[in-house]
This record gives sequence, C-alpha cells and structure tokens, in this order.
Amino acid sequence: MSTEKRSFSIVGQSVPRVDGVAKVTGNAKYVADLTIPGMIEGKFLRSPYAHARIRSIDSAEAEAMPGVVAVLTSKDLTDIGPYIGRGKNKDQPIIATGRVIFAGQPVAAVAAVDRATAEEALGKIHVLYDELPAVISVDEAMADGAPRLHDFAARNICAHHELIKGDVEKGFAEADVIVEDEFEFPMIYHYAMEPHAAIAQFDGDGITIWTSTGHPFGVRQDVAEVFHAPLARVRVHVNFVGGAYGSKSGGKIEPLVVALARKAQRPVRVVTSVAEAMVTCRRHAITCKVKTGVKKDGTLVAKQADIFLNTGAYAETGPTVAGRTLTRILGPYRYPHLKINSYCIYTNTVSAASFRSIGGPQTAWATESQMDIIAQKLGIDPVELRLKNLVEKGEELRPKYRPLDADLAKGFKLVTDKLGWDGPLSKEGHGRGVGFGTTDPGAPLASTATVHVLADGSVVFMCGTSELGQGAKTIMSQIVAEELRVPLDRVTIRPIDTAFTPFDRSTGSSRSTTVMGKAVELAGGDARRQIVELAMEHFECPEDAITLQDGEASAGGKKITYGTLINKHFADQGGELVGTGYAHSGMAPTPANPLFWEIGIGAVEVSVDRETGKVHVEKYITAADAGKAIHPLQCEGQDEGAAMMGFGHTFYEAYQWEGGQIINSSLVDYKVPTFDDVPDEFESILIEDGNGPGPYGAKGLGEGGIIPVAPAVANAVYWCTGARVKSLPLTPEKVWRAIKEVANERKV
Amino acid sequence: MSTEKRSFSIVGQSVPRVDGVAKVTGNAKYVADLTIPGMIEGKFLRSPYAHARIRSIDSAEAEAMPGVVAVLTSKDLTDIGPYIGRGKNKDQPIIATGRVIFAGQPVAAVAAVDRATAEEALGKIHVLYDELPAVISVDEAMADGAPRLHDFAARNICAHHELIKGDVEKGFAEADVIVEDEFEFPMIYHYAMEPHAAIAQFDGDGITIWTSTGHPFGVRQDVAEVFHAPLARVRVHVNFVGGAYGSKSGGKIEPLVVALARKAQRPVRVVTSVAEAMVTCRRHAITCKVKTGVKKDGTLVAKQADIFLNTGAYAETGPTVAGRTLTRILGPYRYPHLKINSYCIYTNTVSAASFRSIGGPQTAWATESQMDIIAQKLGIDPVELRLKNLVEKGEELRPKYRPLDADLAKGFKLVTDKLGWDGPLSKEGHGRGVGFGTTDPGAPLASTATVHVLADGSVVFMCGTSELGQGAKTIMSQIVAEELRVPLDRVTIRPIDTAFTPFDRSTGSSRSTTVMGKAVELAGGDARRQIVELAMEHFECPEDAITLQDGEASAGGKKITYGTLINKHFADQGGELVGTGYAHSGMAPTPANPLFWEIGIGAVEVSVDRETGKVHVEKYITAADAGKAIHPLQCEGQDEGAAMMGFGHTFYEAYQWEGGQIINSSLVDYKVPTFDDVPDEFESILIEDGNGPGPYGAKGLGEGGIIPVAPAVANAVYWCTGARVKSLPLTPEKVWRAIKEVANERKV
Repeated sequence: MSTEKRSFSIVGQSVPRVDGVAKVTGNAKYVADLTIPGMIEGKFLRSPYAHARIRSIDSAEAEAMPGVVAVLTSKDLTDIGPYIGRGKNKDQPIIATGRVIFAGQPVAAVAAVDRATAEEALGKIHVLYDELPAVISVDEAMADGAPRLHDFAARNICAHHELIKGDVEKGFAEADVIVEDEFEFPMIYHYAMEPHAAIAQFDGDGITIWTSTGHPFGVRQDVAEVFHAPLARVRVHVNFVGGAYGSKSGGKIEPLVVALARKAQRPVRVVTSVAEAMVTCRRHAITCKVKTGVKKDGTLVAKQADIFLNTGAYAETGPTVAGRTLTRILGPYRYPHLKINSYCIYTNTVSAASFRSIGGPQTAWATESQMDIIAQKLGIDPVELRLKNLVEKGEELRPKYRPLDADLAKGFKLVTDKLGWDGPLSKEGHGRGVGFGTTDPGAPLASTATVHVLADGSVVFMCGTSELGQGAKTIMSQIVAEELRVPLDRVTIRPIDTAFTPFDRSTGSSRSTTVMGKAVELAGGDARRQIVELAMEHFECPEDAITLQDGEASAGGKKITYGTLINKHFADQGGELVGTGYAHSGMAPTPANPLFWEIGIGAVEVSVDRETGKVHVEKYITAADAGKAIHPLQCEGQDEGAAMMGFGHTFYEAYQWEGGQIINSSLVDYKVPTFDDVPDEFESILIEDGNGPGPYGAKGLGEGGIIPVAPAVANAVYWCTGARVKSLPLTPEKVWRAIKEVANERKV
Repeated sequence: MSTEKRSFSIVGQSVPRVDGVAKVTGNAKYVADLTIPGMIEGKFLRSPYAHARIRSIDSAEAEAMPGVVAVLTSKDLTDIGPYIGRGKNKDQPIIATGRVIFAGQPVAAVAAVDRATAEEALGKIHVLYDELPAVISVDEAMADGAPRLHDFAARNICAHHELIKGDVEKGFAEADVIVEDEFEFPMIYHYAMEPHAAIAQFDGDGITIWTSTGHPFGVRQDVAEVFHAPLARVRVHVNFVGGAYGSKSGGKIEPLVVALARKAQRPVRVVTSVAEAMVTCRRHAITCKVKTGVKKDGTLVAKQADIFLNTGAYAETGPTVAGRTLTRILGPYRYPHLKINSYCIYTNTVSAASFRSIGGPQTAWATESQMDIIAQKLGIDPVELRLKNLVEKGEELRPKYRPLDADLAKGFKLVTDKLGWDGPLSKEGHGRGVGFGTTDPGAPLASTATVHVLADGSVVFMCGTSELGQGAKTIMSQIVAEELRVPLDRVTIRPIDTAFTPFDRSTGSSRSTTVMGKAVELAGGDARRQIVELAMEHFECPEDAITLQDGEASAGGKKITYGTLINKHFADQGGELVGTGYAHSGMAPTPANPLFWEIGIGAVEVSVDRETGKVHVEKYITAADAGKAIHPLQCEGQDEGAAMMGFGHTFYEAYQWEGGQIINSSLVDYKVPTFDDVPDEFESILIEDGNGPGPYGAKGLGEGGIIPVAPAVANAVYWCTGARVKSLPLTPEKVWRAIKEVANERKV
C-alpha cells in the first residue's frame, strides 16, 4: 500500500532484532544486574499516611546499626534544590519535606552494605506523624473546605485548559438529539516488567547514574538542576530497559538515589519492588462528562465536555496530559461547535505521569462509547455514523492545529472489512464494536545523532533513544545500514552514555522513529556524502558516476571498500569519518503541532457469558498508520502490544483504594492480561501512505492501538447484551450486574 | 618572539592543568586502581632462558590449585592469529610458542582469584626447556654461524636502510681531515612511573580493555587482528596513564591479557612490576661507526656511517627506528656527500620499541660528539664549527624531505648567549658543550575529534589523545575554549573510550598538539560556525555583525547565550550541536615528510671532580621550537623533562647483562635521575615562530630536548679534562678512567 517508490534493501525488512540474542540468552544486563565497584544498597522508607505532617524523624538507631552507611532525610538537602517537576511545575520534593501528601511517599532513605540491612534499618527509623485529612478522589479534592495539597493551588486545581470552537449553545440548539453521559476511567499501573531501578555515584568525577529510563537526558537535566551541576558533569548510562510505557519518563527515583549516594559517599543501588513502582507513578484516572448534540441524520453539531483528571500529589506531567485531552476527547470527528474544559486536580495519591497515549484511552472511552449511544438512539449503524463524521485528510481536526494527514475512512474500511462488519450484531449473536485513536502525539523535536565509519568499514552510531523493548535499536540500525549501503551486521549501535551520546529529548510520545530516526537518517546521509566525496577523489569522477553498495564504492567497473577509502584519506594511518544529523525546529511543518497525527483503529467482536458476565474476545482487528514501516514485524508487535495493553484496562486493571491506601499493590492482586487473553483472531494492519515526517515517510505508532480497545469492547458488549457500562474495567461482575439491570428494566 | 598577530584569550596562557586536581588529590584512577565486577588477577610465567626450545609445559598442578581459574599457554590460541607487530612485521607471538627467544618472555599465564594465588600457581607450572645458544650483542648476532632468531632473517638482520647522497668517496677525497669514531649507546628503560597494566573482559559484548597506553586505537587494532574481531567489537578505555615515553605505544601486554580473560571467562587484571616492564620493551642500543670528512675551514664534505641497532627478539618498531636514524645521524648539518647504512639486528633480548625520539639521542651521541672531535682537531670553536655547517631555514636537510622550517642559527644564538658561551672552557675551568636535536618526527596524520555544545552552554569534546602526563588534556581544552570563545572551565574533555571516542592514530612522535590539536581546532571551529549560523538567524544579521565572547553571541548591542540559541533551534527541548574536525592527508605539505622539523638545542657547562670522575652540571640551557606555545609552562615542562631524561642516559642508565639475563632490573639497581640531579642553573627557552602546521602555528616538542644532552655533556667533559668518552653512560668510574688514560698518554 506504500506510495513510496524508492527501493530499499534493509528498510522495510523484518530483520532479526539487533538486541535479540543478548535478551534471549540472558546476557542483557539490566540495572539490577549491574555491579559498580564499592556499590552498596539503598532502600526508601515510605509514608503510611496519605496526608500527614512529619513531626520528627529519629534515625539514630538506624544509623548506629552495623552495616548502615547513611540515612538520608530532607535535612540533608538544604544546600541543593531538591524539587523536580516538568517545566515550571517543580512542586515535587525528592523526599518528603515537612509533610507527606501521599501514601508511599519517601520520607527517609537508607544506604547499607546489603539489602537486608537496609530493609532492617528502615524499621529503626522512627517517624512521628500528625495525620491530616486526605482527599483521594477528584470530588473530594474539589469539595468546599477540602484540605489543600499545595498553598498555590486553589481548589486543588493543578491546571485548567479550555478549547472553544464556534458557539456550543447555538450548536445544541440546532441539534435534533442531545446525549449526556459520564464516563469513568480508573488509575492504571504501567506494569513495566522491570520496576524502577537506579545506581548513582557522586564523586570527584561528578554524578554518574545507571538507570532504567526512557529519558536519559531528562534524568540528566533533572539531576543537574537538583544538584546545581552543569550538564557536562552528570553522566547517565542506559542500556537495557525492561519496559517503560511512560513510567520512566523524566527523573523518577534517580535524584533521590543520587542524594543518597552523595551522603553515603559510595555508589548506591536502589531496586524497587512492584508495590514501590505503583507508588512511583501511574496513569491518570479521568472522569469525562460529555454532552453531544447531533442531527437526526447523524451529523454531529456540538460537543461539550468537562474532563477531570486525578493527577495525584504532584503536577508531574499532569498539566500536559490535561492539555492533550482537549484534542483527544474529539476523536477523529468533525464538530462545528465545541466547548471542552479539562481540569487537572491534585489529590493525596501517587502522582500520575505519562502513560502510553496520555489522556487518549480515557477520553476515547467517553467519546467512542458515546458514539454508539448516539448510533443506537438514531438507529444508525455505528460504522456509518462514524464515516459520516470523520475528519478528512487535509481537514482541520482542531482549530489552529496541523490538518489531518491520514485517510481515516480508507483505514477504517480495511479494519471493518477484515472484521467482516455487517452491523453491530453478528449472526451468531456476537457483539461488535469499533473505535479510533486519532491523537496529537507529543513527539517533541530535538535529537542529535552521529554515525561513524571506521577504518575497517564497520559502522558505529550513537543515538540517545532508549531501547524499551519497542525495537528502537533495530530500527535505527536499519536506517544507518540503509543510508550507508552496508549490510546490517556491519552496524553497531552504542549503549547510551550521556557523557558521549549526543542529546535526544526523550524516548516516548511516539517520537523515536520519526524524530530521532530523522536525525539518524541525516547523520547516515552525512557520513555517506563524505564517503562519496572520497570516492569521487579516488575515482576522479563526478558524483553521479559513483555507486555505493555493500560497503563498497564503485565507478567505471572498479571497486573500493569504504575502509580503504578512509585509510587512504587518512594517510594510511587508520581514520574515522563522523556524520552528524539533527532533528530540530526546522523539521516541523507549519503549524508545528502536531508533528503528525497518530492513527490507531480497532474493531472487535465479542461474546458474553450472560451467567457470569465474562466477556470473550472472539476477534480483534487493529490498524496503525506507519507512514512507512521500517520493520513491519516490530510495527505489528507495537500495535498488537498496544491493543493487548488496552485489554488490560478494559477488563482487569485499576488501583483499588481503602483509606488512602492502595490495597492491590502486587501482581497477584493487580491482574494484567496474559497470553490467555489474546483474542481468538487477532490481526494487525499496517497502513503505509509514506506521508509521515520521519525517515522514508515513517511516522510514529505504538500509542494509537491502545485507545479504541475499551470503548470498542464496551460497545460490542452493549450490542449483544443491551448493557451499557460507563466505568472501567469491564469486570465480569460489573457486566453481569449491568445485564441484570437491563433485564430488570425490561421487566419493569 | 611570536610572529603570530592574532590575539588569544586562552591559548598561550599557562592555565591550571585540567587534570591537576584529580592527580594531586589522588582521585585520579590508574588501571591498577580500577575494579571491574567479577575481576580476577593474572600473572605471566616468564622464561628464565634467553633462548630455548620448550619441550613441554605441564600446568596440571597449577590448574588444580584452589582459586586458580585458568592457565593459558600457546595451545589455547590455535583458533586465533596470536602474533602482533607493526605493519608487516607481525613476528611476535603474544605468548611463547615452541621456543623462547629472550629471557622474560611469557611462556604461560595464570588467572586466579587473587594475586598471591596467581603467583603461587606460576611456581606449579612445570616447563621443560632445552637451552639453546643465545646472542645478546649485535656482534654476536651478526657473527658467522650465530644462531638465527627467525628463519626469515638471514644474519639476524631485521631491517636495513641506506641513504646515499652525492659520492661519499669523492667527498672524502676532497676532505682535508677525516675522523673516524665508534660510539656506543646502551639499552635504556623507559621508566614510566606506572609499569604496564591492563584489564580485559571477553564476553558477549565483545572485547573490553582498560589499559595504560598511549595508543588506545593501536591496542584496538592489534587486539582486533589477533582475535579476528571487527574494530567496533573491541572497546579500549584509557583515562589516566602514569607516563609512557614510547613504552606504551601499540599493543604490549594487552593481547595476552585478553587471551587470558577469554580463557578464564572472567575479567582479568594484570599489573606488571618494574622488572616485568623492563622485559616488555626498552630503547634500542645503537653502535654508530662514523667517518666524517671536513675541510680545514670546518666545512663538512662527507659522512659515512654504519649504524647497528640491537632490536631484540622481535621487530616491534625496530625497522621504523632504524629508518629514522638515517636522518637523525645527520644532525642539522649540511653534507654534500653521504653514505649512511642502518642495520636493525635481532638479538636474544627483550624487544626494543619506540622511546622518546626514536634513534635520536643514539645518533646525536655520535654526530655531536664527533663535531667537537673535529673542532678540536681543526682548532675551531665548537659553536663556530656548527654555525658554519647548519642547514638554513628553507634548505633541504635530507634529499626529498621537506626543507627545514626553522631558523636554527637564531635559536642556537639564544642558547649559547644564555649559557654565556665564549669558548668551550670557562674561566673557572668548567667545560662547555652544545648539541642539537633536529629530527623528523613521525607525527603521523589521522585524527578525528568532535566538539559538542550542550543546551546549558557547557562544552564537551572527544579526543583520542592519551594524557600521559604531557598535558594534552589541558592543551586540547584550551584549543576548544579558544575556538568556541568560552571560559576554560566550561569545557570538559571526556576520557577515552574507543566505543565512542573518534579515532586518533596515537599519542607520541610529537604529534598530538600538532595533528590532533588541528583536528580539535577544526572541530571547535565547526561547532562555532554552527553557533554563528544560529546567531545570524536569531539576530537576522550577516555573519560579520556577530561577535562571540564568553559563551554569548552578540550583535547590535544585544546578547544571547549559546545555550539559549541551541534551545531555540531545537524547539525549546534541549539539543546539542556537534562539530567535527579531521587531520587527514590533506593537512600535510608537499613533500609530506616530515610534517615539521622538531627542534631542540642544548648547551651545558660542567665541572668534573678529577678524583672521582663525577661530573657536576653547573648549567644547562635547553631550547625548543614550539611554533606557538599553547601552554608555555607545559612546553617548558616538556622540554626540561626531556633534558632531565637525557641526564639519565648520560650519567646512569643502561641495562646490565650477564648470561642473557638483566641483572639490574629493579629501581634500586637501575638508577634514574632525581631532583638532586637538576642542574644548578636550568633554563628552557621557547622559540615561537608561529610556522608549525598545528593550531595557531604550533608544532610538536618534547622529544628534541633529550637529544643533545649526552654529547653536550661529553663534549664539556672533554674540554675541561681532555677525556673523550665514546660510550654511555658517563659513570664516574668511566670518566675517572678516561681522565687517567689521558694523564697516562701525556706522561708517555
């Protein structure tokens, strides 16, 4: 389906992963596998209260324990700036200072010769708390007289965004039908296989950190700010990361581990448990109150929404997530009139952070569920209703934003055809549902890459993208091999070491293939240009007479290897060429936001056991717009993985609270999908229109696929049971109760 | 004295060394200070015989010892190419194979949990040798019927070079006086404060080495060849090196340490002792038979020399050193007729390698000593004789070589004036001597550097030059700061890690400031150009309206920091600019050899205790042509350090042999100069003509200063005692005997 005419030798091939052997043989070393000479172990003492004043901390007994090297509290940090946070929202102390505002917040930290000693010492730190009233839900937080988490935040509002288009009241006046619903999406755990882990060293060489992060340079920035260090003195190593999904975006435990290492004057490792990771960050719970006006023929005319994000104790990325919900609540639909308000609310819970498609699944849960409510009310097929209202390619989806760059109807047809859509109820009585993920990914610019051609013709390159499991090392290696016309096995990607690896903004927001990929493409091209110049000099011929292939330049029937060209250029003494590539502001089209639209489409067929409420997924079709699939199998893996993650929050996942405490903070109590949950039929379709801003027309994917799952399933459940569930997850009990209610209503 | 008109802010300043604090506080970590997780200790079993066939090696008892992890012999290396050597001379097995050909050659290697166990295990490896006749001296090696070290080397000749100019017989026929002498220069130990040490790891990530070397990329190359690995899979770390002087040029112990780590499947560290370093490499002993014809007025007309280098067991750099002696025997003098032959001879001794001014002090010992013999014979002042014959700036010194690029007479006058030269004998009866070091340094091309400007305006750069104590880190940092117009403290040089650091040929042959310095200058300039472009865009003004200073760009009265420019360029997301610089074949003038002439000039005044033969250095003046002194104090330090090293071989140093064994292989028995040996008056003069090919007109120094010391002192001793010593060192006994001999001759 690609419109790309260029022929590729490596790009577009599902080559073996370059990190595959290391991973399957167990040779890949994750942070918890690393040993740093002199390293000791750290543990955090965490608050048992959701909200309390710290009256005193007595660490004398812990400090006196043999094997305890250091006990750290906020008192040790008065010489630095121990607050982190995105942008201007530096509201989060790296350790509780005076007050704790969520259960699980670090209050003290211990470094000891081994983990058992450190854990024992935690019990010998005596903290006196004065418990304070806590607010766990948005309603509690916004209630009159609610305790305030931060002096500067009236009504605990962390951020508020508004989107107005047209005149929403006029729109509702013109509507034939108005529907109003409220949808609930709970807090979700990222469940990266590897919980947060970091090792820090603080010595005469500066600050060195080995960490599991998607933002090596973000961690560098946060730590540099906290410790008043120039960027050049903070060195962050990242190699293998066991998943992230947003949980490892920016400084998380790292600044506190550095502070502990600074006090201990020894390298300190902190490896958190799942329970600790669950109080490190989470996905935003969101309540959406949505009112939509529609003509009888199904034309949408107005939408009003109030979106409330439970952002937890500190701002983190909350304001950004709230901002993003304004677009994401729209779905891919055309509304003449809009009034969307999004409120990001502080509560006494662990801070919410980035999570695969920030604000996407939560708002689509509302919008796509409501689309089927409308379809049902108007007696229009849900696919028809959507097709009628889809924003077209080149049309503005949100005012002042870049027009849509994808043909949604085309992709939608592929998906519904593959599902065999002929209505929302199959002849076997299965329910069917569909949904879109059409989002404005963050995909921020700012990536620099270098590609080095060595004197033996081998190629190495430096690229600050974290390999989180998404396959970035392989994709980037393919781009380098393609640009330099060398076999893939001659290309080596270096691990990330911010002392050497050039800057990359972050790994996340679907940006790496598009943004860093572009920098890598340009760096490879820059190195190739230099090789061509050497070949022109060598063959004494013009550029167009040179052909590069398999690490050799040829012209007029003669060949020379890159290595020989380089040696010759460097007076037969070895040598190395360096190509540099940048993804900077010049890469963005106008308007710059978004860099591209990320497209995911989902369609599902389910059967429901009416006795138990258990939903069985018969078939799931997911589609993603790859622009150009550099590694098709990985693209499918990303898209399918996103969908499977969507089944997690659709059926199982949610933080459970009791008295300000999380009561399901283990993987026994917090169920996630397993291979048993893979739909009977599960297909991924890659759309390749070659129109992305990334290399060869690629654009980001991997976040779109998670979005439509929950509403598609809920819609399918509705069509085969009549039961409409508006809060996630769709547990058997909840579905069963909804079915019962429908039956009761019918009886009445 | 500089002719350079450009004004500098940092270049030319003797700023504090950037590595100074780490060194004086003891924080600098040398290889022996490093700990690699899982690391064990290695030791080499060395041959007690200078020449023997290995009948068998029984390592069973050693292998059975608790704590012994591996015992390695040549049998473990049949799957690789276990030979190293420069260029085509790959004659050196990394461990003895079938035969040992010098005492001290590694025969087996042990890796054990600690050093004591490894040492104990050495005694439990049972090697049966059949001793063979050995040749220690060149005469023995070249004698009829002498045992051959290598089948391919008839008469044990490793290499032979000849230089012919004019017709030397015709020249001698035209001469009024002909002198013939033979001079002996013994084997010398480099005496780097840190003997050879390396840690190697061989695992799924490839080969990783931490070593004390001046040639990180040479070690990479050697190891890659031995283990058939691509360059990209061999990673060499170098940070602090405790001196080298040529002893750490190219692979030394590293390939064997890697082989041991490969067998042990653990990281292995080998730290050698002084005695082991003395059998790792040394300076060439050289015998020079020199015949010179001269006119009565002192004009040199012909020179014939036969130079014999005792190169030891393997070629190493011997062929290169022998080649270099052809130029170096000439000194800076004009000869119409020349016939120089240089023979590099294998002997059953440790291989000779590079050593500060390869072949320089040895040949100058002959030439400069003989100049005073001629002066005495003709009754001409030694300074006058030299001035009469000095090659002038722009004149050819050696046929087909680049003409001389320095005004020697001018520098010579500075030195003799400073000494107060009014003849070879002072009115106090002190002897005076002078000498030149005018050499063609190797200074091979091939250096790549990158300079990175980070988003907070700090600057980091990567440069593969090893800091050997010579001050390279400081010099290179100054160049970067100068090029980028930032304060020096904003510049950070990264340690060498060949996984990231771009290629550099080597640290040595006086090349770093000139060749790598040029690459660093160009890389800094490339980064500066990018900043200027951003500033032009920002200020909307032409390039010439932009001024860069103190990390800020200004135009029209407005200022902006580099960091702000970068952030802006990268859409306020951070960012990094990378500048690249190359020193490649295009840097060399035509003819390319040498890249520059390295100039050292020495003048000495001594008193001699006639009762003991002890020579006291009253005054020593040394001068070096820096081209442009980037860090004057370091230049002086290099020049004075070279001269002091020269006093070592002048007065004390020489390997002592007995039955093929070195009998003074400890620092108690092998005396080197100390602070007590610093001359009463000791001055260094820097000549800055700004005409070097390096940055700002700089050229290499640090090797020239060692050359003239011995002949200048011997000449001074002659003039005040009449005793002419033609073999080094000038021990009190030798001088006393020579004085006695003169007295006896006079009596006769």
